[in-house]
Amino acid sequence: MTAIKAIAFDMYGTLYDVNSVAARCNALFPGRGEEMSRIWRQKSLEYTWLRSLMEDYRPFEAVTEDALVFTCAQLGLSLDAAARSALCEAYLHLEPHPEVPAALAELEATGTTLTILSNGSAHSIGSVVRNSGLEKHFAALLSADSVKVYKPHHAVYEIAEQQLGLERTEILFVSSNPWDASGASHFGFPVCWVNRGGKTFDELGQAPDHVVTGIDALPAYLEARNGH
Amino acid sequence: MTAIKAIAFDMYGTLYDVNSVAARCNALFPGRGEEMSRIWRQKSLEYTWLRSLMEDYRPFEAVTEDALVFTCAQLGLSLDAAARSALCEAYLHLEPHPEVPAALAELEATGTTLTILSNGSAHSIGSVVRNSGLEKHFAALLSADSVKVYKPHHAVYEIAEQQLGLERTEILFVSSNPWDASGASHFGFPVCWVNRGGKTFDELGQAPDHVVTGIDALPAYLEARNGH
Repeated sequence: MTAIKAIAFDMYGTLYDVNSVAARCNALFPGRGEEMSRIWRQKSLEYTWLRSLMEDYRPFEAVTEDALVFTCAQLGLSLDAAARSALCEAYLHLEPHPEVPAALAELEATGTTLTILSNGSAHSIGSVVRNSGLEKHFAALLSADSVKVYKPHHAVYEIAEQQLGLERTEILFVSSNPWDASGASHFGFPVCWVNRGGKTFDELGQAPDHVVTGIDALPAYLEARNGH
Repeated sequence: MTAIKAIAFDMYGTLYDVNSVAARCNALFPGRGEEMSRIWRQKSLEYTWLRSLMEDYRPFEAVTEDALVFTCAQLGLSLDAAARSALCEAYLHLEPHPEVPAALAELEATGTTLTILSNGSAHSIGSVVRNSGLEKHFAALLSADSVKVYKPHHAVYEIAEQQLGLERTEILFVSSNPWDASGASHFGFPVCWVNRGGKTFDELGQAPDHVVTGIDALPAYLEARNGH
């Protein structure tokens, strides 16, 4: 088995909790935060896939805002400009999952190159990472925006291979999103699926090489896999 | 405005009620039919989009079965081979929405060429249409399978243009699915959105040219539009 030299992390859901916007939603629309956050996230994903298929790319922040407009319309919630802006801003201040900061420090200490490869724009990725104080761990923050299409299109996964100057088999792709893990596996990355909540993996003809319940399990996995 | 010479109907949801499989689901898994049918439909759609983006095409019946397997796993329902087969078979026996048979007859009488353009395979489309006795109204049944990618990729919409030998502006695309109506509009079809249930249109940068609550409103729309 090829030794892993770098890790490419998905960001939304994998390192950062997308449901951390639910509290902000709930403050604006009491009792509706969970439902709103769930539909907003689902629609954001759908819009990235649909726009990619339609070949009608639009930056991630704009897609996120479109999905918010849809969500509020569907739920019958009145969204003024201030609320819209506050909620989109909340997506730049996501909280990392609890185990993430210490696990990143431990992984970095092993000499593994750490990167993020996300559908988010460079601005979004940079803001989320800086706002959580974790930027020091990453050698590169890679955005789908540079190829104007979203995951799971192969062009996005290729960014990591090209920017890191490594073979895809040397890059461990880590995602909590089954569709993303499937796309990365189809592309040819070794893939670790982070299944924090007992979710069901997607039936897209792929299986993850490894499954963990948090990224704090990655140092031991790398050690076992690389045979150090 | 260019006169409409043909109509391309989406099939699933637009002419036929995809929730008509809920009763069959409920017979096998009492009390879970609605939830199961809803997740199954949503996952089927996601898998068509994701496989198209991954450039890993798989025939529609297989994608539908994959989505069923996921749905049962997620809901903790045990799916044996007989149930799996019975449920997939149910997707070949969908019921048309109530107004559809009479409306198709009325539209056909106006001399408008009627076609179906669906993500379903030729076998699926043919089965659904024959099993409901509506095949006589259609000049052509067009399947995404011929281009090995799914809507809303432009290659699927192009099938209608090419097979009908008409300009896209002469073909009215009719769909109840906002993402499909959006894709067709982006492609350049005039689009009618069938909104039977007070749904919210998607925020994909497109708007339908016309909105109806059932296809029985199409003859009057065509007459007004074509100026007869």
